[in-house]
Amino acid sequence: MSWRADILTLFPEAFPGPLGLSLAGRALAEGRWALGATDIRGFALDRHRSVDDTPAGGGPGMVMRADVLARAIDAVSPEGDPRPRLLMSPRGLPLTQERVREFAAGPGVLVVCGRFEGVDQRLIEARALEEVSIGDYVLSGGEIAAMALLDACVRLIPGVMGNAESGTEESFASGLLEYPQYTRPQLFEDRPIPDILTSGDHGKVAAWRRAEAERLTKDRRPDLYEIYRRGKA
Amino acid sequence: MSWRADILTLFPEAFPGPLGLSLAGRALAEGRWALGATDIRGFALDRHRSVDDTPAGGGPGMVMRADVLARAIDAVSPEGDPRPRLLMSPRGLPLTQERVREFAAGPGVLVVCGRFEGVDQRLIEARALEEVSIGDYVLSGGEIAAMALLDACVRLIPGVMGNAESGTEESFASGLLEYPQYTRPQLFEDRPIPDILTSGDHGKVAAWRRAEAERLTKDRRPDLYEIYRRGKA
Repeated sequence: MSWRADILTLFPEAFPGPLGLSLAGRALAEGRWALGATDIRGFALDRHRSVDDTPAGGGPGMVMRADVLARAIDAVSPEGDPRPRLLMSPRGLPLTQERVREFAAGPGVLVVCGRFEGVDQRLIEARALEEVSIGDYVLSGGEIAAMALLDACVRLIPGVMGNAESGTEESFASGLLEYPQYTRPQLFEDRPIPDILTSGDHGKVAAWRRAEAERLTKDRRPDLYEIYRRGKA
Repeated sequence: MSWRADILTLFPEAFPGPLGLSLAGRALAEGRWALGATDIRGFALDRHRSVDDTPAGGGPGMVMRADVLARAIDAVSPEGDPRPRLLMSPRGLPLTQERVREFAAGPGVLVVCGRFEGVDQRLIEARALEEVSIGDYVLSGGEIAAMALLDACVRLIPGVMGNAESGTEESFASGLLEYPQYTRPQLFEDRPIPDILTSGDHGKVAAWRRAEAERLTKDRRPDLYEIYRRGKA
């Protein structure tokens, strides 16, 4: 059984989209993961195929209906499906690399892509949807957020990343942002590669990189640095 | 002059992708914004069309070359281009809705999509790239991150959102997560819409929503709640 993602969306034609290219696309073609995109509109209950209605209590925008979404979820992820059911939403807990690792280690995910002003709260509760936010900004819908989540997960599925893509020494793996990287040419617009990196002294290179990663994290992300510092103490 | 995004990528075929659909796609078709995707590989300097090389100092993965990327940037965004030059990278400052608003209010953006182990640091410095992170997780490349950034920006370009898409009462606009939403049917699997929302008392509805938004924010995002609380005090 390969890792499987099912997406519920009003725009199934958006998938696989960028997930069909590069690392995730190659892994998809090789069968290391599977992707289904299902049109929520196919589960509408009336002849107008309505999926949304005005918010109870008034206000702008439209809210996705609980009954229609419930039918869609139950069709794609029947009772007993062990996969977490996610709703991409700016109200959710922020996605972290740790949570990505957990998703990637599991059987897959069901992802509901919100649109309009939001999703009926009773659906979120009745189907135990986990609201996930990819960051503190507002998108026009959950589709691109779902793609970000899946891209992050798929690269961690065993066999997907080769050495060329590494993944061991990257941002967040150590709790620090990644140190600066350099490659040929030796001189770029009068800027040389730092001497230490071409010295051949592996100990000094490792110490320099660690110091740079700490400096960068402290400077840009005091929040992450504080967690790192406490973990070391 | 419409708002213009230029993307530098190894996968130009990923664009517009999901940005060609829905709100952003309609706005693109209407000329409210413009999108160019340029293949970095077209600016390679050798007959193998190399864009990357091994990291100076050793280590896994490959680093994108400063000289090739500089040629690509200079071609697409010559000196005097007023647009911010962004590099999607987990090392960057986290994207916020406030920064999105600033980007949307400007002339557009140039976005470099990183791949491999990273981008030569000298290029970042020499072309004054602003590193932007969409969240604390690692993607296989910057393309989906660029899509998230553009989707967030485009919906704020004047004329793009109609009332149906609202945008006034959404998460982060008030510094709080959005209150729960409900819509018809009145009863869903024995769960009614909260009475207060169907009471017709606009003052009580507004008070309930504010209280729910505060409760949700305090519970899920104490970090945001603390900023909100201080702003009110």
